[in-house]
Amino acid sequence: MLIVMKPQATGEDIARVCRKIEALGYRPHPMPGAQRTAIGITGNPGPLEPAEFESLPGVAEAIPVSKPYKLVSREVKNEDSLIRVATPAGEVTFGGTELGIIAGPCAIESRDQAFRAAERVREAGARLFRGGAFKPRTSPYSFQGMGEPGLKILAEVRREFGLGVVTETIDPENCDLVEQYADVLQVGARNMQNFSLLKRVGRSRKPVLLKRGMSATLEEFLMAAEYVLSEGNYNVILCERGVRTFADHTRNTLDLSVIPAVQRLSHLPIIVDPSHGTGRRDKVLPLARAAVAVGADGLIVEVHPEPDRALSDGYQSLDPEEFAALMAEVTAIAGVLGRTTARSVPAAPTSSEA
Amino acid sequence: MLIVMKPQATGEDIARVCRKIEALGYRPHPMPGAQRTAIGITGNPGPLEPAEFESLPGVAEAIPVSKPYKLVSREVKNEDSLIRVATPAGEVTFGGTELGIIAGPCAIESRDQAFRAAERVREAGARLFRGGAFKPRTSPYSFQGMGEPGLKILAEVRREFGLGVVTETIDPENCDLVEQYADVLQVGARNMQNFSLLKRVGRSRKPVLLKRGMSATLEEFLMAAEYVLSEGNYNVILCERGVRTFADHTRNTLDLSVIPAVQRLSHLPIIVDPSHGTGRRDKVLPLARAAVAVGADGLIVEVHPEPDRALSDGYQSLDPEEFAALMAEVTAIAGVLGRTTARSVPAAPTSSEA
Amino acid sequence: MLIVMKPQATGEDIARVCRKIEALGYRPHPMPGAQRTAIGITGNPGPLEPAEFESLPGVAEAIPVSKPYKLVSREVKNEDSLIRVATPAGEVTFGGTELGIIAGPCAIESRDQAFRAAERVREAGARLFRGGAFKPRTSPYSFQGMGEPGLKILAEVRREFGLGVVTETIDPENCDLVEQYADVLQVGARNMQNFSLLKRVGRSRKPVLLKRGMSATLEEFLMAAEYVLSEGNYNVILCERGVRTFADHTRNTLDLSVIPAVQRLSHLPIIVDPSHGTGRRDKVLPLARAAVAVGADGLIVEVHPEPDRALSDGYQSLDPEEFAALMAEVTAIAGVLGRTTARSVPAAPTSSEA
Amino acid sequence: MLIVMKPQATGEDIARVCRKIEALGYRPHPMPGAQRTAIGITGNPGPLEPAEFESLPGVAEAIPVSKPYKLVSREVKNEDSLIRVATPAGEVTFGGTELGIIAGPCAIESRDQAFRAAERVREAGARLFRGGAFKPRTSPYSFQGMGEPGLKILAEVRREFGLGVVTETIDPENCDLVEQYADVLQVGARNMQNFSLLKRVGRSRKPVLLKRGMSATLEEFLMAAEYVLSEGNYNVILCERGVRTFADHTRNTLDLSVIPAVQRLSHLPIIVDPSHGTGRRDKVLPLARAAVAVGADGLIVEVHPEPDRALSDGYQSLDPEEFAALMAEVTAIAGVLGRTTARSVPAAPTSSEA
Repeated sequence: MLIVMKPQATGEDIARVCRKIEALGYRPHPMPGAQRTAIGITGNPGPLEPAEFESLPGVAEAIPVSKPYKLVSREVKNEDSLIRVATPAGEVTFGGTELGIIAGPCAIESRDQAFRAAERVREAGARLFRGGAFKPRTSPYSFQGMGEPGLKILAEVRREFGLGVVTETIDPENCDLVEQYADVLQVGARNMQNFSLLKRVGRSRKPVLLKRGMSATLEEFLMAAEYVLSEGNYNVILCERGVRTFADHTRNTLDLSVIPAVQRLSHLPIIVDPSHGTGRRDKVLPLARAAVAVGADGLIVEVHPEPDRALSDGYQSLDPEEFAALMAEVTAIAGVLGRTTARSVPAAPTSSEA
Repeated sequence: MLIVMKPQATGEDIARVCRKIEALGYRPHPMPGAQRTAIGITGNPGPLEPAEFESLPGVAEAIPVSKPYKLVSREVKNEDSLIRVATPAGEVTFGGTELGIIAGPCAIESRDQAFRAAERVREAGARLFRGGAFKPRTSPYSFQGMGEPGLKILAEVRREFGLGVVTETIDPENCDLVEQYADVLQVGARNMQNFSLLKRVGRSRKPVLLKRGMSATLEEFLMAAEYVLSEGNYNVILCERGVRTFADHTRNTLDLSVIPAVQRLSHLPIIVDPSHGTGRRDKVLPLARAAVAVGADGLIVEVHPEPDRALSDGYQSLDPEEFAALMAEVTAIAGVLGRTTARSVPAAPTSSEA
Repeated sequence: MLIVMKPQATGEDIARVCRKIEALGYRPHPMPGAQRTAIGITGNPGPLEPAEFESLPGVAEAIPVSKPYKLVSREVKNEDSLIRVATPAGEVTFGGTELGIIAGPCAIESRDQAFRAAERVREAGARLFRGGAFKPRTSPYSFQGMGEPGLKILAEVRREFGLGVVTETIDPENCDLVEQYADVLQVGARNMQNFSLLKRVGRSRKPVLLKRGMSATLEEFLMAAEYVLSEGNYNVILCERGVRTFADHTRNTLDLSVIPAVQRLSHLPIIVDPSHGTGRRDKVLPLARAAVAVGADGLIVEVHPEPDRALSDGYQSLDPEEFAALMAEVTAIAGVLGRTTARSVPAAPTSSEA
Repeated sequence: MLIVMKPQATGEDIARVCRKIEALGYRPHPMPGAQRTAIGITGNPGPLEPAEFESLPGVAEAIPVSKPYKLVSREVKNEDSLIRVATPAGEVTFGGTELGIIAGPCAIESRDQAFRAAERVREAGARLFRGGAFKPRTSPYSFQGMGEPGLKILAEVRREFGLGVVTETIDPENCDLVEQYADVLQVGARNMQNFSLLKRVGRSRKPVLLKRGMSATLEEFLMAAEYVLSEGNYNVILCERGVRTFADHTRNTLDLSVIPAVQRLSHLPIIVDPSHGTGRRDKVLPLARAAVAVGADGLIVEVHPEPDRALSDGYQSLDPEEFAALMAEVTAIAGVLGRTTARSVPAAPTSSEA
């Protein structure tokens, strides 16, 4: 059920509807929009009676919601959500005209490695820095990340280079720590249905980057985001990173059709990870171009100062020159779609504006 | 690296090898066998020098291990592992001649529902009772389980019916609680690569039932088990529960070929879940027969006293009569393979034994 | 639309209905059953009016058919179809109590190879012999089969050993030739949607063994059979041979759940190919046991006198001893389900019959 | 084995090598390049001796080829192949700077429908017209195409609008007919491993559009093309049209990563079918943009004058306005990659050139 308020509804009207929902034992989710506020209801086991709400002051209508996901749905909020990430160098947004570009190494390995990567990705136009301090690895014997010392290096990168920090959190307890350092909390593909973790990041005030699970359907992907929103955190950025199929020429099969499919059903922004999505360095650039062309709201790309020496995922990491080339190409493609990156040259003013 | 001790090696010989491994900064895993003890080494970043160990007293040989998984591998331990589960009515084993049969409802819904299910599955020959108190659900708005009150009902079932309890744990913190009630800790398919949880159950003293992830390769499945063993808990029962494919006539595609594939590579027992593996009540019986025929070490089956009223997974739950029929059929098939269930009729003594 | 005749309807009643259907421009498919005859109608672009037929003498009812497949459906014919294959040593049936067992080499390589295989598979209890003379191969440079000389060897095997011959036909023109030698025409997985070939074998009088395509859904599989039946050949034996998934421990993933799924929807018999279904010699025996346990109506197994010297598929072929062991085990499993193989020992007569 | 001739080798040198290959019982495939001629050898069961060829006049070197595919491989021919299609309005090429754009209805339904579609797609910039006269359909009861009358309509379209004709052939016999009308012979996804058909089109002089099978690996796809080339027809255009996965938000999962993967291994051009690749009208435009951005050599798009009345695939067909919008967008994206379409505006001459 979704309660749509009239444009002229007062704060008290909205509060009254929320109290009524709570009195019935459910949970209200007021979502202010440009024109008017909508209030989602969750926790109800079955359909509610619209008439019970439509009689309250300020209520325009009460709409039954047909999808299993509610808060992420365009039925509940039709305009695109703009997710804002605070960085030392100002706000970065996902879901607006400018693409959100996240780049950096798979894992933080040392202060030197992180600084060298940060300097180069900032130059090339990234405004957010990725780097794992806690790494979920298939083998218990593989490098599991530097842990908190890695987070401290990320904090230095943040201060030194003005880049926002995107880093992974791997369980609810770990989130208490990561949250202190991250500007965006990343939930990895293997944890897309780790519901304890989803609920925990849903109680955080930091935006969440939620990667699609390896064999997640569109509905499961949106339901995972719904877990986060239903706990009160509406700042979710979705991320396609390839799905598992029979095809063996790439590590995963990048499913770019999910971008327009998500955009049709949900107001949340969605970006693409062409590094994990292909698992092959020489495929990252063409698929990054395709991701922007299909309409993605941004990219997350693995960049390492020396890919051949990376402790993890070196075979899919770009070197800084390759990343700069990627930024140039995707900026040009973005222009065709009326979008920009931090590298876009502003259009020259016309003479009448001069 | 695997250190194989001579049959006549003493306890002190074994301890000396372990101390040496620790002195090198690695972790020893002594595994006593029927004939002699083997000692696995984990934590080493690369290959070790066999000669360093072969010169120690009591050491037969030091064998480099070629698989990415070690402790779960037959290279390290060739004989089948027998996993013992303590129940009030005596020990139940997985990996021996008798099949381990686990049955019960998807979720604990009430004391009455649990008791009615327990009575009937015990009658039919199950010695372990399944039932979730914490349920990972795709939707945040679906029934998430009764929580601790559900665990208390399981404790009553245990006491009242003498059945061992198999129940799911969903995150490391939750494990502290579940561990107090469960005889076997279940890790669900969606958590197969929740490495924080795997490490946590690896530090438990309770056996672990590890379900294969929806799109896990054989190697990823064994590596997940390796996480548990590498923390010191060698009591892992694997479980095939269907994988995700294009096929739409069942909810998942039950991959029975993984049973002989696991048995070739690993000493751990593996059972089959025909309920989740098909997601259709009318497919559970034929696939349970097939699972036993292929050589599985047991079954886990959803049984509900009134499937049509179940709060979750009713469409794939058997009613008690159907489960009794299943037990009769799989007991007959087991007999063909020289295996038994709790319902097998013992062979009549020959006259000379009389 | 399906016209169900009354039990006492005469031949003339049936002919009258058929003439009426033809007069409307459609195609009648009379299917005599044990109790009464049903007449399927194909070629109609949309729903027909039941009343138009129900008024004719001898008509019990006219039932709209809801599935996209008609003639293969249990809606049209509820009793299991019994497909009879004539061999020099008598009739072999698929879909009855006795399992139909087909065995032999992947490809016919020489008279000697074929004879040695035939002798051994007959001994072990197979009554039908498989062997390709025309082989669809992924590479144009791989052995493509002996062609007509291979068919002539099959004819000798037939005469010499009394075995029926199952062999593949690869295109409509080729079918003219193969049909002269085969007792069962095999359509391979890669040709499951080669509709020209399906129509051609639909006009043959020989039974057809139709293998499931590598990524065919259940509906596509049944629709492929429908092509054959719609041309007038109702003698189709379906065959599950593994589907393509992400799993890499077997060459294909054998989908045994399709057996009960087919049996629920269709009256046609279905057998299993554990050789292609796993692609690994050591998996053939356990999966053959599972196939019989799940309820399959038979097996098709690759057996080569010297698998290591086979020109194709040697890595998945059994040697004759392994096949004999397989027959012993599946015969025992079949017994549990009340079914038999040619190797089943008839029940001993009771003393009163003596 | 690949024989690379010296740049100055004469026609007689080349003929001598070919005769030698034939004398050994194999088949020579001379492939003239810009600089020099290479000669592929097929039909050899195992490796040949390089020295046997390197001693002949004009031979630069004899190189063993490591891939299972030979003639399609860049090992044999490094430069991109340019496939030329003759149309009444001049040559259209695939694999060069200009993208090859094929558009038109799924099936030819009438002269009126075809003419209306042809007029609009030509206006929008397509130079090749697609339309099936023989349609492989999952159901025997679905519209199977108009047959030869449909081909005659295509001939009229060709004459009237100057468009080249791309149409499907479904079996070897049918190819005799289709070949008389088509400028490009299409082999559909379901026939990708119909080896009889591949051999037949390999003996045609018309270029072949080969669609990737629904579950074909990259290697199988290239091997299917190899069948065509090995019969002497080197004019093959590959086409990605989506593969079958668990994902259910599109009919197939368009695998754009196969484009750079093919381009790395093979000299053949590859285009994309976003209509079948998504099966949803609203996904065609974004995925067409992505296809061009990833580097595809062209597109094949379903366009129907009235999609809602189409006899097949209407739900994935664009109307003419949508197609014109698609052409505008992909032309802009092509420009970013230094490529053009028939709608590209030539760069304005600079003043110094004036």
